[in-house]
Amino acid sequence: MTVATARRMDKLGRSEIREILKLTLKPDIISFAGGLPAPELFPVEEIKSVTQDLLSRHGRQVLQYSTTEGFYPFREIIAARANDNFQTKLTGDDITIVTGSQQALDLAGKIFIDEGDAVLLESPSYLGAINAFKPYGPRFAEVAMDENGMIPAELEKTLKAVGRAKLLYMTPDFQNPTGRTLSLERRKHIIEIINKYNLPLIEDNPYGELRFEGERLPALKALDTKGLVIYNGTFSKILSPGLRQGYVAAAHDLLELFITVKQSSDLHTSELNQRIVYEYLLKYDIKEHIKRLIALYKSRLDAIIKSMEEEFPPEVSFTRPEGGLFLWVVLPEKIDAGKLLVKCLEEKVAFVPGFSFYPNGGQRNTLRINYSNMPEDRIKEGIKRLAAVFRKALKA
Amino acid sequence: MTVATARRMDKLGRSEIREILKLTLKPDIISFAGGLPAPELFPVEEIKSVTQDLLSRHGRQVLQYSTTEGFYPFREIIAARANDNFQTKLTGDDITIVTGSQQALDLAGKIFIDEGDAVLLESPSYLGAINAFKPYGPRFAEVAMDENGMIPAELEKTLKAVGRAKLLYMTPDFQNPTGRTLSLERRKHIIEIINKYNLPLIEDNPYGELRFEGERLPALKALDTKGLVIYNGTFSKILSPGLRQGYVAAAHDLLELFITVKQSSDLHTSELNQRIVYEYLLKYDIKEHIKRLIALYKSRLDAIIKSMEEEFPPEVSFTRPEGGLFLWVVLPEKIDAGKLLVKCLEEKVAFVPGFSFYPNGGQRNTLRINYSNMPEDRIKEGIKRLAAVFRKALKA
Repeated sequence: MTVATARRMDKLGRSEIREILKLTLKPDIISFAGGLPAPELFPVEEIKSVTQDLLSRHGRQVLQYSTTEGFYPFREIIAARANDNFQTKLTGDDITIVTGSQQALDLAGKIFIDEGDAVLLESPSYLGAINAFKPYGPRFAEVAMDENGMIPAELEKTLKAVGRAKLLYMTPDFQNPTGRTLSLERRKHIIEIINKYNLPLIEDNPYGELRFEGERLPALKALDTKGLVIYNGTFSKILSPGLRQGYVAAAHDLLELFITVKQSSDLHTSELNQRIVYEYLLKYDIKEHIKRLIALYKSRLDAIIKSMEEEFPPEVSFTRPEGGLFLWVVLPEKIDAGKLLVKCLEEKVAFVPGFSFYPNGGQRNTLRINYSNMPEDRIKEGIKRLAAVFRKALKA
Repeated sequence: MTVATARRMDKLGRSEIREILKLTLKPDIISFAGGLPAPELFPVEEIKSVTQDLLSRHGRQVLQYSTTEGFYPFREIIAARANDNFQTKLTGDDITIVTGSQQALDLAGKIFIDEGDAVLLESPSYLGAINAFKPYGPRFAEVAMDENGMIPAELEKTLKAVGRAKLLYMTPDFQNPTGRTLSLERRKHIIEIINKYNLPLIEDNPYGELRFEGERLPALKALDTKGLVIYNGTFSKILSPGLRQGYVAAAHDLLELFITVKQSSDLHTSELNQRIVYEYLLKYDIKEHIKRLIALYKSRLDAIIKSMEEEFPPEVSFTRPEGGLFLWVVLPEKIDAGKLLVKCLEEKVAFVPGFSFYPNGGQRNTLRINYSNMPEDRIKEGIKRLAAVFRKALKA
C-alpha cells in the first residue's frame, strides 16, 4: 500500500477463507461451501408481474430518492409478519429497512463498538457478523454453546470476566454455522441476563421461518422487556437475496441511531426493491411459497443426513438441524479441516472449514455444510467423496 | 439512551438541518431545498422493458447472491463511459460497484480515517460526505474556494498547517452546494500537490455529465499519475436514484480495500438493479437521454437566474453554474440564512441554509438553491417569495 490507511485496515487483510472459497466455485466441484438459497424456487414470474405493475403505476416514485427509514406500508407488513411468526408486538414504527441484513450488522458495529469493547457471541458464530464488527476493533468474547444453543451460565461467566461488554450477538434459530436452535428456557434465561447487565442483544434471524419440524419458538424480541433486543430479519432466504432487503426492529431510541448511521452509509435502500417485495407480499401467499422451500430443503437435509449416516466413519459427528441451511461436522481433534479441504478440492468436493467461525481461532477439526442449493443425487455423491477423504485422513 | 453506545455516536445526534428539511416537504411549499432529479424524465418505459426482459432471461441469476465487486460487463461499460466522457483510461478491473455513491464515501471513511486524522475538503462541501466521514472522527480542514473551485495555494497552505492529512475530498464538477467547477489549470496543480504529499484524493463526480455549456474537462482521475485519485460516479443523477447504483474507480491496491470493506458492509449491490442499468445502457442511447436532462435543467437554470436577476436586491450575489443541480446564494454578512428560513417557511418557500455545508461552522449568510425539480412558473413564484423575505431582512 503506497498511502496511509486507517489502523483498522491492518486487521482486515484478505481472508484465508475468501481465497479458499474462490476455488470452490469451479463448476465441476460439488460444493457444500456456499450458503445460497435454491434458485429454482425463486418466484421469478410473480416478481416479474409485480415489478411490471409497480413500474406502470408508480414508476416515477420507485425510481426516485426516498426516505432512510423505508417505505412505511412495507414496514407495517414486516411488523405484522414478525408478530404472526414469532410472537413479537411490533408496529411499522418499530422497523427500519436496511440494504440486506448484513448492513444492520455494520450499522450495529458503528453504533455500539469502541475499540477494545467486548462483543459476545456464540462459539462458533456467523462469519459475516464477525467481519462486520471487526473494523470497529472489538475484543470478541466467545460463549460456549451446545445442542440447545448458547449456554446461559457460560454467558454470565463470560460477562463477568470480560468487562466493558457492549453487545451480544446471536442467531437463535438454526444458527449459521451449526444449525442449532436456542431452547425456549434458554431464551428466557438470556433475556434475564441482558436485563441484569443492560446489554443490547442483536437477534439475527435470517432462517427462522424455514423450520422443517417442531414448534416455532418466540423470538427473543418477543420476550424483551427492557427494549434491549435489536431484531434483524431479511427476505434473502425466503424470497430473494439479489433484492437486498433486510430490516431492523428496535426500541425507538436505538432505531433512531440505526436511521442516523444508515443515512450516512447509503442514504436509503432501493425504493424499487422495497416495493417489489411489498407488492409480492400483498399479492401472493408467501406462506405457501415458504412451504415449498421447506419441503425442498427438508428433503435435501434428510438426504444429506442419511448419506452422512451411511458414509461417514463413526468418529465423525454432526448436528441434525430442525431448519435452516446449514449443519456442522466435528472430526476427531487431530484432524485439521483446512488441510482436509485441500484434499477434498482434489476430489472435487468442498465445504467451509470451521475455524473461520471462531473469531479467536481454534477448533480446526470442524466444518460447515450447506445443503440448500444442490439436488439429492449431487448431495449423495458429494458426501461419498467427503467420506472417502475423511476415512483416508483418519487412517493417516 | 438507556444503553452505552460508541463514543462516535455523541458527535452525530439528530442534525439541525434534517429537522428543518422535514418542514420543507409539505406540498404547499415551493422547495429549493432538495436535490432531486426531475422524475418526469425518468425513462420509466425503457426501464420497465429491460427489467421485464432481464427477469425473463436471467431471473434466477439476478435474484440470487452475487459478487461484491459487481457484474463484470457492467463494470466494463462504466469504465468505457468514463473514458469517453472524462478522458480516463479505465478498464472493468479498475471499477467496483457500490450501493449508491454515498456508500463509497462511508467506505472511504472506514478505509482511511483514524480518529483525529485531517480530512481536507472544499469550503463549503457536500453535506453527505461530511456526514459519512464524521463517525470516523476526523478533523475537517476546510480549503477556501473561489469561482474556479478549490484554490491550490490554499490547499498547500492547509496541508502544511494540519499535519497527518489522510484524505482530500472534492467535487470538481458543478459542486454541491456551490455549482462551481474546478478549472483545468487547477486540476493539474492539485494533482501535483497530492503527488507531493502522497495524499489520496476522492473525486466525487455525480453531476459531471450534466454540463449545459462550455467544454468538458478531464477528470482528476485522468490526470492521476500515481494512482492516488479515487473516482466516484453514480447513475442517480443521469438515470435513477431509486436504483442505488454507484461505482468507485481506483488503483488496484486501493480498490481491493473498498471491496473488502464493502463485503462486510452489505455483501454486494443488488444484482437486479445493476443489470437493469447495464441492460438500459446496452439497449438505449443514454447520451440522448442526458441531452433531454440537460435541455430541461438548463431551461430551469436560465429561468431561475433570470428571476434572481430581476427580483433579488443588489446586495445578494449568486453563482452561475455551467451544469449540475445547484447554485449558491451569498447574502450580506449580517444576515443569518437559518433565521431567514423560518420566515421563508411562513411564506411557503424553502432552501438549505449554507452553514450545513461548513463542517466547522460559520458563513451563516449563505444558502443553497436546487433548480432541477420544479417547473419554471413555480421557480418564478418561489424566487419572488424569497426576494420579498430578503428585502424585508435587509431593511430590518
